[in-house]
Amino acid sequence: MTPLRVAVVGVGYWGPNLVRNLFELPTTSPTWVVDPSPAARQRVTLRYPSIREASEIDEVLADDSLDAVAIATPVSTHFDLAARALRAGKHVFVEKPLAASSSEAVELIGIAETRGLVLMPGHTFLYSPPVVKIKELIDSGEVGDILFVTTSRVNLGLHQPDVSVVWDLGPHDFSILRYLLDELPATASALSRSCVLPGIPDVAFINLTYPSGTIAHVELSWLAPSKLRRTAIVGTRKMVVYDDTATEPVRIFDTGADLPDPGSFGEFRLTYRSGDIISPRVAATEPLSLELAEFAEAARGASVRELRSSAQVGLDVIRTIEAVERSLAEEGRPVQVGIEPHEERVER
Amino acid sequence: MTPLRVAVVGVGYWGPNLVRNLFELPTTSPTWVVDPSPAARQRVTLRYPSIREASEIDEVLADDSLDAVAIATPVSTHFDLAARALRAGKHVFVEKPLAASSSEAVELIGIAETRGLVLMPGHTFLYSPPVVKIKELIDSGEVGDILFVTTSRVNLGLHQPDVSVVWDLGPHDFSILRYLLDELPATASALSRSCVLPGIPDVAFINLTYPSGTIAHVELSWLAPSKLRRTAIVGTRKMVVYDDTATEPVRIFDTGADLPDPGSFGEFRLTYRSGDIISPRVAATEPLSLELAEFAEAARGASVRELRSSAQVGLDVIRTIEAVERSLAEEGRPVQVGIEPHEERVER
Amino acid sequence: MTPLRVAVVGVGYWGPNLVRNLFELPTTSPTWVVDPSPAARQRVTLRYPSIREASEIDEVLADDSLDAVAIATPVSTHFDLAARALRAGKHVFVEKPLAASSSEAVELIGIAETRGLVLMPGHTFLYSPPVVKIKELIDSGEVGDILFVTTSRVNLGLHQPDVSVVWDLGPHDFSILRYLLDELPATASALSRSCVLPGIPDVAFINLTYPSGTIAHVELSWLAPSKLRRTAIVGTRKMVVYDDTATEPVRIFDTGADLPDPGSFGEFRLTYRSGDIISPRVAATEPLSLELAEFAEAARGASVRELRSSAQVGLDVIRTIEAVERSLAEEGRPVQVGIEPHEERVER
Amino acid sequence: MTPLRVAVVGVGYWGPNLVRNLFELPTTSPTWVVDPSPAARQRVTLRYPSIREASEIDEVLADDSLDAVAIATPVSTHFDLAARALRAGKHVFVEKPLAASSSEAVELIGIAETRGLVLMPGHTFLYSPPVVKIKELIDSGEVGDILFVTTSRVNLGLHQPDVSVVWDLGPHDFSILRYLLDELPATASALSRSCVLPGIPDVAFINLTYPSGTIAHVELSWLAPSKLRRTAIVGTRKMVVYDDTATEPVRIFDTGADLPDPGSFGEFRLTYRSGDIISPRVAATEPLSLELAEFAEAARGASVRELRSSAQVGLDVIRTIEAVERSLAEEGRPVQVGIEPHEERVER
Repeated sequence: MTPLRVAVVGVGYWGPNLVRNLFELPTTSPTWVVDPSPAARQRVTLRYPSIREASEIDEVLADDSLDAVAIATPVSTHFDLAARALRAGKHVFVEKPLAASSSEAVELIGIAETRGLVLMPGHTFLYSPPVVKIKELIDSGEVGDILFVTTSRVNLGLHQPDVSVVWDLGPHDFSILRYLLDELPATASALSRSCVLPGIPDVAFINLTYPSGTIAHVELSWLAPSKLRRTAIVGTRKMVVYDDTATEPVRIFDTGADLPDPGSFGEFRLTYRSGDIISPRVAATEPLSLELAEFAEAARGASVRELRSSAQVGLDVIRTIEAVERSLAEEGRPVQVGIEPHEERVER
Repeated sequence: MTPLRVAVVGVGYWGPNLVRNLFELPTTSPTWVVDPSPAARQRVTLRYPSIREASEIDEVLADDSLDAVAIATPVSTHFDLAARALRAGKHVFVEKPLAASSSEAVELIGIAETRGLVLMPGHTFLYSPPVVKIKELIDSGEVGDILFVTTSRVNLGLHQPDVSVVWDLGPHDFSILRYLLDELPATASALSRSCVLPGIPDVAFINLTYPSGTIAHVELSWLAPSKLRRTAIVGTRKMVVYDDTATEPVRIFDTGADLPDPGSFGEFRLTYRSGDIISPRVAATEPLSLELAEFAEAARGASVRELRSSAQVGLDVIRTIEAVERSLAEEGRPVQVGIEPHEERVER
Repeated sequence: MTPLRVAVVGVGYWGPNLVRNLFELPTTSPTWVVDPSPAARQRVTLRYPSIREASEIDEVLADDSLDAVAIATPVSTHFDLAARALRAGKHVFVEKPLAASSSEAVELIGIAETRGLVLMPGHTFLYSPPVVKIKELIDSGEVGDILFVTTSRVNLGLHQPDVSVVWDLGPHDFSILRYLLDELPATASALSRSCVLPGIPDVAFINLTYPSGTIAHVELSWLAPSKLRRTAIVGTRKMVVYDDTATEPVRIFDTGADLPDPGSFGEFRLTYRSGDIISPRVAATEPLSLELAEFAEAARGASVRELRSSAQVGLDVIRTIEAVERSLAEEGRPVQVGIEPHEERVER
Repeated sequence: MTPLRVAVVGVGYWGPNLVRNLFELPTTSPTWVVDPSPAARQRVTLRYPSIREASEIDEVLADDSLDAVAIATPVSTHFDLAARALRAGKHVFVEKPLAASSSEAVELIGIAETRGLVLMPGHTFLYSPPVVKIKELIDSGEVGDILFVTTSRVNLGLHQPDVSVVWDLGPHDFSILRYLLDELPATASALSRSCVLPGIPDVAFINLTYPSGTIAHVELSWLAPSKLRRTAIVGTRKMVVYDDTATEPVRIFDTGADLPDPGSFGEFRLTYRSGDIISPRVAATEPLSLELAEFAEAARGASVRELRSSAQVGLDVIRTIEAVERSLAEEGRPVQVGIEPHEERVER
């Protein structure tokens, strides 16, 4: 089978990683780079002379031999570029977040479904070996029911001039939570502060509830004394710590509190377990490569295959961000996730 | 000067530490232990044969030579015991929290003030050398304005049968925050779950705002894969990490984001500083000893001296807990701190 | 059965721990404390009023009801005290090292054997749960053959005025190595320096070879930037790290290099394994309590039972120290272990 | 000034890093790659089409416009290639170790000196910002006299089929020690084992003494449960830990033992200092770039400039390795460093 022919739109900071992986994968081939900056394009074409250049997407979409478009531009342009590419009959991969609003995302999903095309947001962490390992542990029942999750994603920099830390870092954690817990949050409430740039929140404390009863806390910040990428998952059977900065990124604790014996006349009696701790071997595969391979596979047999980083996940992530932003606008009031503001009736 | 003669009421888990420190301090002397359990009393008197025993406080309060009472009983009994001791003319030290409600605390403060007696809650962390060191750093201006604080106090156990993790662990962090920030929170909003015992929250995520603009997140839990006692304080000049489990409990980071140069035509330009990190030497003095020494000093010259762990701090801690509980009861709605529920008018 | 009646000789720094454990164990009872310092004795008898005092051992050895003597005095006095106690028919427990020379140790062993008495040196680490766990792992074959061991025992202080770091800290590591490897070193070579006090080596680097082919490096120091208690054991199947300062003192690494496939035409081809890492749950029992319980058990049925911290282990530890000292005296030349200097013929 | 025109000989594992840095530096330009493998050459020329290829060095040395040769081939070929390049009038940069024996190194130094050419071994760690920082601390007197150094460089892999761990990893530590201490060791004694491949030592414990009295221990291994790159430097004033795997690679401890007060009647009285710990900010510059810049600078004004990684350092490193190998051949006997075997007279 010939490799999937993909145009990469936007080759600033992240786009070149898409080009490299599309080049190295046997099932894909980067055929165009699109960027208004000649310098940015040249950094790519010098290295990959076989790739054609364009400053603008129209010429590229007219190329009948092109199968797909991968978009790595600022989020405000995602909808327009993706919509045009889909309407031109191309499969579309969009860096996260999928779009700038849930209504945009819903519309893109509609266009893709109508035309039977693949629309995939780039939630790369869902292909990261530690996250996949934890998902397997949860699915196997080893962790038990998930009681709560806390996660911190903080370090110094990089402030964005036009987007909050919630839009910038939130998609990572919201997509991981969506994947691991397999449910959309019921409510979100949040507190933030714009410490450095007025009007640009750079620290946020987010509390989430889930229909299953699980609760979660997400801390996001561009201002922190040291880098933290730590997620603790507390289950009824085991606890798991995922630290993306550690040499042992996944640690499984056979630790917990066992419920009171029902025969003990209601007497208060808890047993605490504190057993072995295991750091399972985790492969070092590059998540982006796995992700693009899945995109190519789906594009080749689109209708059947369900994507891990599906458009639905992308939409759910945006719905979570929107709920957080709404709560921030209402001084931390808990708001429902996935409901349009005018529809909402939170019980008070 | 003769040492302050103190009766210790309650010698179960914590009380014996009071006895030992009162025995070792030159300015105090434990003269009575009061506990309904003969075995508990005997564990103390075997070691300190000079101490007198009583099963009940009345006989002790009738001892005219007694100067003060130190209370280490369940919180539900604090008000009654403290009120009786104050009315008998004794200075009172009460283990944290000061009382079971802010109205009880207000009443105790009134009784003590009327009689010119010392009333002191045992917020021991305010005498812990790392906390004192951080307070000095903040007061000296080295940290700058406090932008935000995050703090985690989690580990496995010990579930209490009748009190939530907020009442059990919250006083530590709320008193530390009150001391370091020198202000009462404006609002609190919280999320919790009763994972093990029905109706007893054992994990809580608490967001606080302060009049100065500082925000804080407090994570409390009796269920966690490993012990965490970590507080990060992000200031405009420096950042401080306080880790009570580490051999270097205080670490000062010369780290931050410097605001855009005003002359740069509004262009977006941030500079990140990431300089030296210092772990200052911190003394290993026992906080409880320092705390009881201050109590003795105040009791000797009561009217003048302001206590670090003052009754006002004790009241403010309870007000914070009550606001958290109210927010929990209202599904996470942010509520005002320090205002009686019926008076509250949160702006929405 | 009545508890073993034990006199504790020397209640300065370590002796009180012997008293406490002998008091708490059901099978032992401390009946005398012997110390020239009345203050030292009183610190014990205040707490345990039932124990009798003596300034000198003679009166105590005359007590027919006494079963055993536990010695925690400076090493230079071990031989004389232990010999007198054995000759008086008492079982003897001696804090490590057993004696000040291997000839003293050999003589004590002879006296004990002649009289059918227990003679036990206090190599407490052999009862430490992490060490016992590692011994089990080795004995089970899980680690494979031991290729090499490296161990560091360093921190700041406490310089001894009359004894080198080798005599002070060496017994810990040499007894652990003797227990885990179950063999006496063949040769020792060492380098040291007296950094602070002239003539008192306070840092030593020791290389050991073993008959089985295992090699070991032992680093000892009273001068170090931070406390290290780390032992790495590299086996043909697995590797183990024992860190006595860590919350996870034993970690098992499924890591190694697999030998070249013989069928590969002599081609150079190694496979590296790097699998799961396990931190097994280790109990928190006090080693000294387990050690004294074993002493009591042996004293009750002496002839049968083989002690883990046997007199032979104590002798082997001294032989290792003596070889190290001899190598130091000869500027690091490797010397044979367990051979009297005049007998030695090292092949060159 | 035109950039220094450099041919890179050997573009297997490490050579491409030389090409990249020579390409990016303004003062150097890679003009040739030399390698017998067309595939290896092509990996470079695909990326840098302006670079010319050769399978063998002769054609390259005939290029009059070429200024210098950088050699990154197996050590057994260093002497021949470097000698030919020097004789052709080219400056020479050789990856460490400089040559396969000290006599080869001495001969190369002679050839270079005769012709006034630069000969520089690639001891890259001497340009590593943490090492440079520590050198500054030592030179400023802040650390005091160096009492001893311990260093561990261990991890799993990569076994070399034809060279011991001493030749492979030793040059790193021996060059760092030579740079920091500014002296050649007086004696070396060593213990090693060939755990995996017969005749190829893969773990070595090396003890070094220095004329100044400093002592050092170096642990090298290709078999270890986890990666260690830790050097502890204990001085009379301060102690420094250099951990190349840590986010804070340099840590300065204001820690030590202060000598007994001479006025104290010979009484034993030590004071231990344990003050602040500082992690100084260390730049993230690539050492190889700094090293090649220095090479270019020296080549441009050769006679004047003294190189940090000088040919003398390269020779001293080889002399240390040779002494270690000799000690290994003599079962760990301490041997003199820098003396031909037949000249040696170690005092016993």
